[in-house]
Amino acid sequence: MLRLYDNLSSGNGYKVRLMLHKLGIAFERVEMDIDHGGTRTPDFLAKNPNGRIPTLELEDGTCLAESNAIIWYLADGSPYLPDGRLERAQVLQWLFFEQYSHEPNVATPRYWITHHVEMTPERTMALPGKRKQGYDALGVMDGHLKERRFFVGERLSIADVALYAYTHVAHEGGFDLSGFPAVNAWLARVAAEPPHIPITQG
Amino acid sequence: MLRLYDNLSSGNGYKVRLMLHKLGIAFERVEMDIDHGGTRTPDFLAKNPNGRIPTLELEDGTCLAESNAIIWYLADGSPYLPDGRLERAQVLQWLFFEQYSHEPNVATPRYWITHHVEMTPERTMALPGKRKQGYDALGVMDGHLKERRFFVGERLSIADVALYAYTHVAHEGGFDLSGFPAVNAWLARVAAEPPHIPITQG
Repeated sequence: MLRLYDNLSSGNGYKVRLMLHKLGIAFERVEMDIDHGGTRTPDFLAKNPNGRIPTLELEDGTCLAESNAIIWYLADGSPYLPDGRLERAQVLQWLFFEQYSHEPNVATPRYWITHHVEMTPERTMALPGKRKQGYDALGVMDGHLKERRFFVGERLSIADVALYAYTHVAHEGGFDLSGFPAVNAWLARVAAEPPHIPITQG
Repeated sequence: MLRLYDNLSSGNGYKVRLMLHKLGIAFERVEMDIDHGGTRTPDFLAKNPNGRIPTLELEDGTCLAESNAIIWYLADGSPYLPDGRLERAQVLQWLFFEQYSHEPNVATPRYWITHHVEMTPERTMALPGKRKQGYDALGVMDGHLKERRFFVGERLSIADVALYAYTHVAHEGGFDLSGFPAVNAWLARVAAEPPHIPITQG
């Protein structure tokens, strides 16, 4: 059985849980203490030298890291990943946008708040920049979704799953989504596509 | 003919130039002024709403953004992208590692220095954290390469191209690579794989 090293509060972990659920794949979930070095033990670093969750352990013991690489692996060959060369590259474009322009700005403030992380001078100084860049990323999404139902190919793909994970809880990081009507309509569409589970479900 | 919106100093742009060169694909290169808003004009935002280079314009006018999505697109079906489902996911794992854990820490200080960007209090405060996380990423690479010739599958893939781009110029951002012997040996191997071009070649 697949084993997922995870943390229930993590949007990156949720992407993998949601895809496993959509694909009907059974898995064992291992909750990791990400606040007190649980991912920095020698045992875990042998599985993922970068010391992060989610990490997926395959049945032969091979470990795969990086949430968006994991959901690509899981979805490959399913309707959640298009077949065409250009559409697959477009899915990747949005997955890289998510990890570079969206997650560090939209997810990180949520982590600081919900995990009661000490607001060091470095974090305090970084917050306004993250806020601006997070809103910029939401604006790019809103513009793209104005005339589209989903990010790529007019059906739900892992691009939607990846961007849904932290966008639907952006308010927990202090983001106000009221100025992004196309994003809000898309969030509702993604949540209405069965099978769906909330981020709180392990 | 493919058209690449690019900046010669950009490692992200270099990834695409290097892959186009390796694959023998002719292209037109458009040098963008990234220091003075050249990627924020209405014309360019119509091509890439996220306002970044590299952006690849295909012959039908479709534009593809995000360097690692572009090199995936170019390499798909070539020896630079493995066939197997797991190996492809492992390539993706390193591409996401590059954009999340490596590039923001290793490339950004180089950009600040070489483009004479004003060191605002925010950037000054962020630099020590980027330095530490950049060295952490180089350490992860060094550990992985200790017993391997290339990142995935024992032959050069786009995972190597992506990580080579900013690692081989990390010293320009103030990083000392002398403590990473496996990385240095790998850098030499990548540069020795023909056909190769330097980052300075358009």
